[in-house]
Amino acid sequence: MHPSPITALPGPYLLFLGDTTEPGYAKTAFGLRDWAPDRCIGEHVLAGGSVSTGLPAMTPAQAHAQGARAMVIGVANAGGFIPSHWVAALVEGLEAGLDIVSGMHARLRDIPGLRDTADRLGRQLLDVRQPPEAIPVASGRRRSGKRLLTVGTDCALGKKYTALALAGAFRDRGIDADFRATGQTGILIAGGGIPMDAVVSDFAAGAAELLSPAAAPGHWDIVEGQGSLFHPAYAGVSLALLHGSQPDVLVVCHQAGRKAMLGYPGYAVPTIEETICMAIRLGQRTNPAIRCAGVSLNTAHLDADVAARLLEDEARRLDCPVADPMRRGEAFERLVAECLAPA
Amino acid sequence: MHPSPITALPGPYLLFLGDTTEPGYAKTAFGLRDWAPDRCIGEHVLAGGSVSTGLPAMTPAQAHAQGARAMVIGVANAGGFIPSHWVAALVEGLEAGLDIVSGMHARLRDIPGLRDTADRLGRQLLDVRQPPEAIPVASGRRRSGKRLLTVGTDCALGKKYTALALAGAFRDRGIDADFRATGQTGILIAGGGIPMDAVVSDFAAGAAELLSPAAAPGHWDIVEGQGSLFHPAYAGVSLALLHGSQPDVLVVCHQAGRKAMLGYPGYAVPTIEETICMAIRLGQRTNPAIRCAGVSLNTAHLDADVAARLLEDEARRLDCPVADPMRRGEAFERLVAECLAPA
Repeated sequence: MHPSPITALPGPYLLFLGDTTEPGYAKTAFGLRDWAPDRCIGEHVLAGGSVSTGLPAMTPAQAHAQGARAMVIGVANAGGFIPSHWVAALVEGLEAGLDIVSGMHARLRDIPGLRDTADRLGRQLLDVRQPPEAIPVASGRRRSGKRLLTVGTDCALGKKYTALALAGAFRDRGIDADFRATGQTGILIAGGGIPMDAVVSDFAAGAAELLSPAAAPGHWDIVEGQGSLFHPAYAGVSLALLHGSQPDVLVVCHQAGRKAMLGYPGYAVPTIEETICMAIRLGQRTNPAIRCAGVSLNTAHLDADVAARLLEDEARRLDCPVADPMRRGEAFERLVAECLAPA
Repeated sequence: MHPSPITALPGPYLLFLGDTTEPGYAKTAFGLRDWAPDRCIGEHVLAGGSVSTGLPAMTPAQAHAQGARAMVIGVANAGGFIPSHWVAALVEGLEAGLDIVSGMHARLRDIPGLRDTADRLGRQLLDVRQPPEAIPVASGRRRSGKRLLTVGTDCALGKKYTALALAGAFRDRGIDADFRATGQTGILIAGGGIPMDAVVSDFAAGAAELLSPAAAPGHWDIVEGQGSLFHPAYAGVSLALLHGSQPDVLVVCHQAGRKAMLGYPGYAVPTIEETICMAIRLGQRTNPAIRCAGVSLNTAHLDADVAARLLEDEARRLDCPVADPMRRGEAFERLVAECLAPA
């Protein structure tokens, strides 16, 4: 992977799981284990904790001896804060030579015990929700290299995993491709990126330009989408990301059967066709050659045979490749091939 | 005017002009004199300065005695910073009992002499470029009252003055109407508002909801537009503002003859028709009843007779009211009437 132009996180990671007993709170750790296995060398569970990623258990000192350079807080809790009884373990990590990386809302530097130790030892406290400083206003200028953006009908339905799966499939075919992360989990997986939702509005499109810079003509940036152009709260972020990333290719992401926007019950999820039309229409502003290669349909809640039939039916109905990247198979191969088809 | 739900600036103002000799740097002061005469009771010019608003000259102490409650820095300079030789005059203002208000990039609290004096005296240092804290994510819920948004084909062509002129015309007709400011000059004029461009992306639509809250059924909020839905850098801000303000009525603003986006020479200015279509299409997401009442055409650079003919021709071509609010007249009356027509 090319280094991100922005945040570059130290690695590999020791995954910190605290004393968590609820697997639902450890989604970040599981995502890292599944999507960034090369970046994860072990886990650190405190007394009382019962959640495990299955990675080798090790202390911060053992992890450092085996090459770890950062301890990543791989769990959330309901309040998004860092409980006081975790602080000693994080300090132990700093003293063992590890930087601390967090995707939580609470800022690491606001915890005096951590800040003082990190400053004394010259270690880093890295909050991946903090965007870099000095992001420029977008220039709108075209740049070399190819870009793909995953575009959603709604939030939280597979834009990140679709982008990761496509980047992996491109690389499997010998193509130079980078996953470009725009949210906290994606940034931890990629080891860098920009948290688009935290960028000041005026610079949001500029952040997307910075995230997918000029590259070799055959290089692909696979940009993780955010929100939806139809989202009553986040459409502005989605449009800034579309304009700034100037994608050559879109893949529209949808969850089979989702009818109402998550958390916005009065708002219907737009149709796939509407989403394609609107994304093309708006995206043409900064890349007149933009095209939609197909659809990523999240069928995780369906049985395999029902899902397979639905993917076929939708591909016929929409007249384009429709695949669930988590199920791979021929449908996914067709989607990848269409992404890479000459414009 | 209803108090803004957000920043509420103290007033009336003493306009601080420093030692400026270049009228172009005093646009903020001139705008305040022209659009907020009730908020401006005098000006304060330092030795060496030659620019005047024509308002009575007074010292901070004299201004305070006559009711002033804030001194507004009504000039910019090339660097956007506050020269050290202005600081003594600003301190004098604080000591005279005035708060200091600035629209510059440099933050007032970062100037030690000002911060210390303000803290000692309990005076406020107010940077109108700083958005309020704790802006919520947009809810998307409909709210009572009527809203109008000015929507531009580009930046800097009259969205703020159109909104001010419409709010004034509504009030002249006995309608309860508030101008809702979204940029720094507008905020100084209105005495409150939210600088949309400085809000973190995820909260931009939420800021627009906060700025134009639920109101009496007959009340109108006239919201100052920002950017353009076709702007390669700022379209995200424009879309967030459109979604969050949920306008019932749009007025599209354009400058006669402008062909290329300001500062983006490769980008053509969209047509008025395209802009109407796109704004309606996107705005329907949060207000299905949205409609365009007409066009505000900036003809400041044209002779009166040429402008009058152009406004007529455009009204015929577009089949809707087209007016230059700075020229008032019958065309503007038609635009106002169409804004207020029953939906």
